[in-house]
This record gives sequence, C-alpha cells and structure tokens, in this order.
Amino acid sequence: MRASVLRDGRMVYRDDVPEPVPGPGQVVVAVRCCGICGSDLHFAAHGAEVVALSNQLARGRGAMDLDLDQDVFMGHEFSAEVLEAGPDTATHPPGTLVTSIPVVLSDKGVEPIVFSNTTLGGYAERMLLSARLLLAIPNGLDPRHAALAEPMAVGLHAVNKSGIGAGETALVIGCGPIGISIIASLRVRGVENIVASDFSPKRRELAAKMGAHQTVDPAQGSPFDTVKTRVVFEAVGVPGIIDDIMQRARNGTRVVVAGVCMQPDTVHPFFAIAKELNLQFVNAYTPEEFVEALHAIAEGRIDVAPMITGEVDLAGVGAAFDDLADPGRHCKILVTP
Amino acid sequence: MRASVLRDGRMVYRDDVPEPVPGPGQVVVAVRCCGICGSDLHFAAHGAEVVALSNQLARGRGAMDLDLDQDVFMGHEFSAEVLEAGPDTATHPPGTLVTSIPVVLSDKGVEPIVFSNTTLGGYAERMLLSARLLLAIPNGLDPRHAALAEPMAVGLHAVNKSGIGAGETALVIGCGPIGISIIASLRVRGVENIVASDFSPKRRELAAKMGAHQTVDPAQGSPFDTVKTRVVFEAVGVPGIIDDIMQRARNGTRVVVAGVCMQPDTVHPFFAIAKELNLQFVNAYTPEEFVEALHAIAEGRIDVAPMITGEVDLAGVGAAFDDLADPGRHCKILVTP
Repeated sequence: MRASVLRDGRMVYRDDVPEPVPGPGQVVVAVRCCGICGSDLHFAAHGAEVVALSNQLARGRGAMDLDLDQDVFMGHEFSAEVLEAGPDTATHPPGTLVTSIPVVLSDKGVEPIVFSNTTLGGYAERMLLSARLLLAIPNGLDPRHAALAEPMAVGLHAVNKSGIGAGETALVIGCGPIGISIIASLRVRGVENIVASDFSPKRRELAAKMGAHQTVDPAQGSPFDTVKTRVVFEAVGVPGIIDDIMQRARNGTRVVVAGVCMQPDTVHPFFAIAKELNLQFVNAYTPEEFVEALHAIAEGRIDVAPMITGEVDLAGVGAAFDDLADPGRHCKILVTP
Repeated sequence: MRASVLRDGRMVYRDDVPEPVPGPGQVVVAVRCCGICGSDLHFAAHGAEVVALSNQLARGRGAMDLDLDQDVFMGHEFSAEVLEAGPDTATHPPGTLVTSIPVVLSDKGVEPIVFSNTTLGGYAERMLLSARLLLAIPNGLDPRHAALAEPMAVGLHAVNKSGIGAGETALVIGCGPIGISIIASLRVRGVENIVASDFSPKRRELAAKMGAHQTVDPAQGSPFDTVKTRVVFEAVGVPGIIDDIMQRARNGTRVVVAGVCMQPDTVHPFFAIAKELNLQFVNAYTPEEFVEALHAIAEGRIDVAPMITGEVDLAGVGAAFDDLADPGRHCKILVTP
C-alpha cells in the first residue's frame, strides 16, 4: 500500500509498504485525513536529538526504540474509516468514520502512534487502531475537521492545566497550531479577554477568527508592556522565550509552557523567584479531553475550518513539510491519502 | 551607635553610626538578636550583580536605590526591645520584646529592611520599626528563637505554595537554613514522609532533628533513584540543580524552587514538557505566614534551638560571614548587639 515515510530527514513516498494485519482487539482502518503536526517537522529535522533526549530522560526504562537508519512512520492527527476487525474483535460496522487517541494496544503493550519503525501512522493508506479506543465521529462531522480533535485536545489540556477563570486575561504567545488551539479552547471555556501575540499578520488574523479578542504584534513592542495579565500561554518553543517571559511577566503569573523547545535553554531563576512565577509545562491530554475536543468541534463550539490552509495527497507530504517552514503561509495542512 | 556594615564586600564594625530618629508611626527599638541569612552572604560577595539583576527586572519602576560605594545596612531576621515611639505614635510599653516583618513604613512608602544605604537593619544596636507592624513576642519566647520567625516563614510559605497533602512524600534537596525551615514546616503541616538530601553529614543530622523522617547523601546516588516522590523542594540555589531535577523527577512532579540561584542557568525545557512538571518559584511570605511561624515557634511546634550554631557580637559579624562559607559547620549564626 501507499505511505509517506521519513527517510534520511525527508518525507519519501512509497507504494510498497506491507498491508497491516490486525491482531486481536485491533481494527484496520482506511485513513481519511491526517494533519501535519509541528512535532513531525521537528522530528524530521532533528530526529537524532529527539531520540537522544528521550533516552536520556528514560534512563534505561522505556527508552525510545527507534532506528533512524530505517524508515519512520508518522502521523498522529487522523480520522479514518473502519475496514476490518482482527480476530475475536467486535467493532463498528465497516464504513464507520472514526478517530482515536494516537496509541494502539498490542501484545507488546501500549504503542504510541507518533514516530515508529513498525507502527503505522496517519501518513499511510491504512493503519491499525484499537477497537476499545475507537470514537465514532459524531453529528456527521466532516472527517477533515475530526482529524483536528487531536491538536484541539492539546490546547484544551493546556487551558485546563492553567486553571484560568473566565474573568482573567489570557495572553497567548505564538499563534501556530498549538497557540490557535489554545485560543479556541479559551473561548470555549468562556474566557472574556484573550490576547494573542505573533509576528505574522496572517497568524494574527487567524487568531482573531478563532477567538482572540485582541491581537498584538511583538515587533511593535513586548505584549507585556501593554497587556495586564497573570496567565500566559507560551506556544513558541524556541530558546530564549521562557526567560523573556520570566523577565517581563507580572508578579504571581502562571505560565503554561506548551511550546516544545528541544534545545538547551538559558534562564535566570532569579527573575522567576523574585516574582513567584509558576511554570506549568504541558504535553498531550487525557482521553477525556480528546473526547471533549472532538465534541466541541462536532457541535460547532469550535470551528476548525479556518485552520485548514492546505491539503495534499501522500505523494505531496514532502513538499508540504517544506511549505510549513514558512510560518506566515500555513496553519494546518491535511494529508488525504 | 554601633553597627556592622557592608563596605567593599566586607562586613565592617563601626561605632559612629548616627542614632535613628523615629518619624510618626515609627518606633526605635534595641536589637536583641539578628540571624545572618544566606542572602546577606550572597549580597556581600555579589552585590553588584544583585543590584543589576534587580534593576533589569524593575525596568525603571521601583529600581533598587542603592550605592555600593557607600556603606550598606543589612540584617532582616531580628528580635528587639521597644525603646521609644515617634511623634503621635501609640505602641507597646518600653521594654516589650517584639519582632516584625522586615519593612518599615515612612513618608517615602514601604522601605524593605534588607539592603540599604539609609534604612538600618538588625546588624546594629538600634533600628526603626513601624508601630503598626510590631508583633509582641508571645509566651515568654526567647528572643534568640523569635529572630528565627523570619526564615521559618520562608519555609512555611514554600510548603503552603506546594499544596502538599499529609500523605504525600516530600523530598527536600539542600539542608541549609531554608531547607531546614521547609522540613520543620512540612512537619508542622503533618506531612508523614519527609526525605532530606544533603552532602553534609552535619546538615543531614540537623535535618533529622528538625523533622526529616529519612535523610540521604546524594554522593551515594541521586535521591530520585530511591525516593518515590512527586513533591520536591529545591533549596540549594546553584546553577544546574533545576535541570537535574527536571531530568530525574517523576511525571507530574511539583517542584517548589526556594533556592535562590542568581546566575544564568541552563535547562532542557523538553524534560519538563515530557513529564508535565510544575515549577513554583517562591520568595518571602505573607504577613499572616510570618505570624504563624512566630506562633509555631512560641508554642513549641517548631523547636529552632538546634538550628542556632553560633552567636557573635557586632564586631564579630565579619568573621561569622567567613565561617558561614563552610556549609558543614554552621546553620544559623545569631548576632547579638
């Protein structure tokens, strides 16, 4: 079957990937859509560092079992159609549109669908999911929009971890897909003053469309000079940004760090100490948050349509990765096998 | 009158400091005891950096108004005896033993009693306090012990900010005065498993005396290898320690950063993101926490006696600063003018 795989740092189109064979409890699905995530771009460019850091963290237990000299399957923001269940497995009828949190259960345990030499992801014609984890796409929702439940769950989780109240002002720094997802989730949570900051006019425009009450251009001066806030969402993920926030934020600010900075970073702990800052680092979401994100989209509380700025087939994934390097041009590109 | 002042990085004894003159609302007190704080040692050695960082943070508003080419008064952990009130000021009768949070109110506003060219601190025979802020020392408590209400309030505040429950395991890294204060406060809060880590056997011994249920020597291996905890108190304050904790802590750990690292520090945000760590930086305490710390000492819930490892007069402050550089030898040295 067809797939797009990571090989030597580039996405490569293949038409000779073996068909997946479902084990007990597993279901073969036909991928309808898969969003390209910033973490996929980062892994393509810096896979060796990601593996090294992950293994440094795991310190022997649960280290990342991945060989970058072999093809890597990716794609964790997907919607799909049920094709066929594995042995002794009850599931939805064939043709049902579904999504799932990006893990698959097997006799080896819980396998993340994110970066793997063996577990297929959403950049493929077909993949395996677990019957127990399947979520039928509700309300006749467009599967293109259902694929965005995953990044929306990331934003919802960040907002939940912030503990923000409706009357507090939120400052969202960075309006890439994660920042946008945070903005949409803040709006769903009823936050009445959402300020979004990004250098790109296109991204600021999208932020306003997705729920920001005010947008600011940091090139015109730090948002901290004009925005009175004690809840900050960091969705940039580059070295220096955390220290800049620590230096500029007001006393007692809660900073939710959702941007994924993979490099070593320099901070001045004194800034954070003097102001009693709280840094809540976030990653992923709970299964309940994933369900809530899916329903928020299906029920029209979040309109993800403006986020989708491109669509490619499996042969176009490599070019899409290149296009996404330009932050002004795209938010989310969907792969439709 | 007599005082010990910071001059060119050294504590210098003077007997020609002008007597303080109380304004309205102020009270002249005779200092009974003043604890030497690690932040005083740090300021003596790195005052210029502290002023520069503070001013960088203040960005023009509320900058530190301090000239290091002039004598600096210090000493913020004090107990004292009321001598005389200023004009139109009602206060306790002369002879009453008192303490206070280390600020004094004047027509210029709230002046911190910490590092100043003009506001006297506890390393002096007499100083000014505010009648409104005076706390009579209760229960006939020894004024030597009452002077430790201030560092105990720091520990109590750190524990309060952690939100720790009695059934959770606390790991306290670093058993200097702040770590010890955290341990004592954890014990007051009823925490049933307090683990203290320090390289110094003397400090580990003191930690056990002050309430730690278990002590570990990090030279024998990281405490994270043996202690199952999700609440960590960082009370070391040197570069590298935050990143080490971020790398080794378990998923979802709350890290309370109470150690004051004044240098730039390198961290790997990815470690904290992957494990959804929470970093709560802390500093100081509320007036209520100061009162609570004073009462905990006066009512015997915290016995601070083991912390006091030395006593000097005003002429001995310089030598005491030198002695405190050796972490194994001393915890708290009191200055008794």
